[in-house]
Amino acid sequence: MPPETPSERRPRLTPAIADVRRAVREAIEVLLRSEGDAPLVLVALSGGPDSLALAAATAFEAPRRGMRAGAVVVDHGLQRDSALIAARAAEQARALGLDPVLVRLVEVGSGPGSGGPEAAARDARYTALDAARRDTGSVAVLLGHTLDDQAETVLLGLARGAGASSLHGMAPASGPFVRPLLGIRRSTTVAACADAGLEPWNDPHNSDPSYSRVRVRQTVLPTLERELGPGMAEALARTAEQLREDGDALDHMAQETIEEIVEHAEAGIAISVGALAANPAALRNRIIRHVVLSEFGVSLSRVQTLAAAALVTDWHGQKGVDLPGIRVVRVAGNLVFQAASDI
Amino acid sequence: MPPETPSERRPRLTPAIADVRRAVREAIEVLLRSEGDAPLVLVALSGGPDSLALAAATAFEAPRRGMRAGAVVVDHGLQRDSALIAARAAEQARALGLDPVLVRLVEVGSGPGSGGPEAAARDARYTALDAARRDTGSVAVLLGHTLDDQAETVLLGLARGAGASSLHGMAPASGPFVRPLLGIRRSTTVAACADAGLEPWNDPHNSDPSYSRVRVRQTVLPTLERELGPGMAEALARTAEQLREDGDALDHMAQETIEEIVEHAEAGIAISVGALAANPAALRNRIIRHVVLSEFGVSLSRVQTLAAAALVTDWHGQKGVDLPGIRVVRVAGNLVFQAASDI
Repeated sequence: MPPETPSERRPRLTPAIADVRRAVREAIEVLLRSEGDAPLVLVALSGGPDSLALAAATAFEAPRRGMRAGAVVVDHGLQRDSALIAARAAEQARALGLDPVLVRLVEVGSGPGSGGPEAAARDARYTALDAARRDTGSVAVLLGHTLDDQAETVLLGLARGAGASSLHGMAPASGPFVRPLLGIRRSTTVAACADAGLEPWNDPHNSDPSYSRVRVRQTVLPTLERELGPGMAEALARTAEQLREDGDALDHMAQETIEEIVEHAEAGIAISVGALAANPAALRNRIIRHVVLSEFGVSLSRVQTLAAAALVTDWHGQKGVDLPGIRVVRVAGNLVFQAASDI
Repeated sequence: MPPETPSERRPRLTPAIADVRRAVREAIEVLLRSEGDAPLVLVALSGGPDSLALAAATAFEAPRRGMRAGAVVVDHGLQRDSALIAARAAEQARALGLDPVLVRLVEVGSGPGSGGPEAAARDARYTALDAARRDTGSVAVLLGHTLDDQAETVLLGLARGAGASSLHGMAPASGPFVRPLLGIRRSTTVAACADAGLEPWNDPHNSDPSYSRVRVRQTVLPTLERELGPGMAEALARTAEQLREDGDALDHMAQETIEEIVEHAEAGIAISVGALAANPAALRNRIIRHVVLSEFGVSLSRVQTLAAAALVTDWHGQKGVDLPGIRVVRVAGNLVFQAASDI
């Protein structure tokens, strides 16, 4: 690829380019509120249309807000030509004026507990991105996830059926990672690249139907839009935003209540039945789930949580409830949780 | 149809029949806790497999719990042979031993604001069911909605994108209406009917793809299960249950907070900015939405709600926000909501 000329780097302001830039500008302004002079931000660049459009918009917006912008390209080493692909993305980043531009080779774990190859690649990627952030003293890593990615995440969460929190989608900001494009359609990033004369790389993984995310993109979302009307992706993303808000508030309240009503006794962890009964089901069930997770490292399903809660809500002298590795009994006005091995 | 013999009315206890009966028994036990001697419960019977299985299970369980059980058949008059279909369902109800059995003819409204023919038919049905309940002195009307209906409702709500509350699905109990079968698959009600020798009526509307619910049933849910794995309907129903719990708790907290922080001033409705800022987004946005709905009868979208909330969360001296029929300004530490016509 020939080096880009300055005129290619300053494309005509099309609607798609304007949309992506506005999204990046808003994210940068939030970052600047809590940061000092001329901080550095890194764009996580794969070379695909989402992250390439993000990189171009960040290269444009950051200097205008007194911020420096660099890029980090992660090479998972999973494809034969992955080093070439990473080098090409890095070259595009430099041509956009981003500096510094880092390429990080990561090894993808495949040991037990790594949660499958998709999860392993994701874990390795986030670890490498955060390391690059620390190495460069950057305040944040910008990620190119779009509204379409968010909608796909919500549908994948629905399919897992892991309760309300599986519908929260991805956070706009979590730790050092910021996602400015969660309100931008993927088609807009594709258009922004085309408008700017940027040639994105198309990851063959993104059309491999052995990935559930690809099946959501290629089959499930199009079916939903065809049968139930357009706007499904937007509806899913909007729903995710509100559910995250609701879940955050209830999690916070549950945690505050736990500090008031949970006691460590010799027999185990004790929670006042009266206090559990006085709270609405949404908090009662969260309190039980949070306590069991933090004390015993066990993540209860909804059915298991409700079985323990029934010792409060449907008490008729039951003997107790056995959960994985934990026994719950009602003693003297308390629910008492004990490790099964201690009994 | 020949009248059923007593032996046909006492079928062999198959797994499907046992599942439906258990679900009905649990619902009846909840009703009995708050009711006096030998109360009457009505089953809403269409003659389809869901309500027919419900009717059979209720006819079996109610007398064993000291409850009387009747049925009400609604004839919408929408199909040429609807009177015949209603008469056949009533005959089945009597054969099951239900008493009294009412048939109610309803007229479906089609005026403006009736929300389309599906919504008009639903409104007319619920009105007729509740009238039958009052006329017979029944404590509740049991409805045959199944887990499949619940999953379909959640997907339809997702498509509407009307926020988290659109995902709550149907309540297990709302006012006089009780839905014992929300945890039972439709296939189980079909099997229970077959096992009991009951012949359900198959409503042609249930396979007419001009209804969005039918498209969800025939195309959307099967696509989700094929692409993302089985258990989708159960996952959707489980999610609905938890989201309803969460939404109920937050709605209740928002209402309590409103009583503390909202004041009726001459200029309009005033809410303390400090109090709004001190509450989490989930409550802040609900407070704004609830106040606008109860004071002005306007249902704000999420985007509109966030625009008003930005006068608290992103205050930089804005002039105010115009919502449909309402103006919101920030004055002397309050958000003030005024009808636009009063300004």
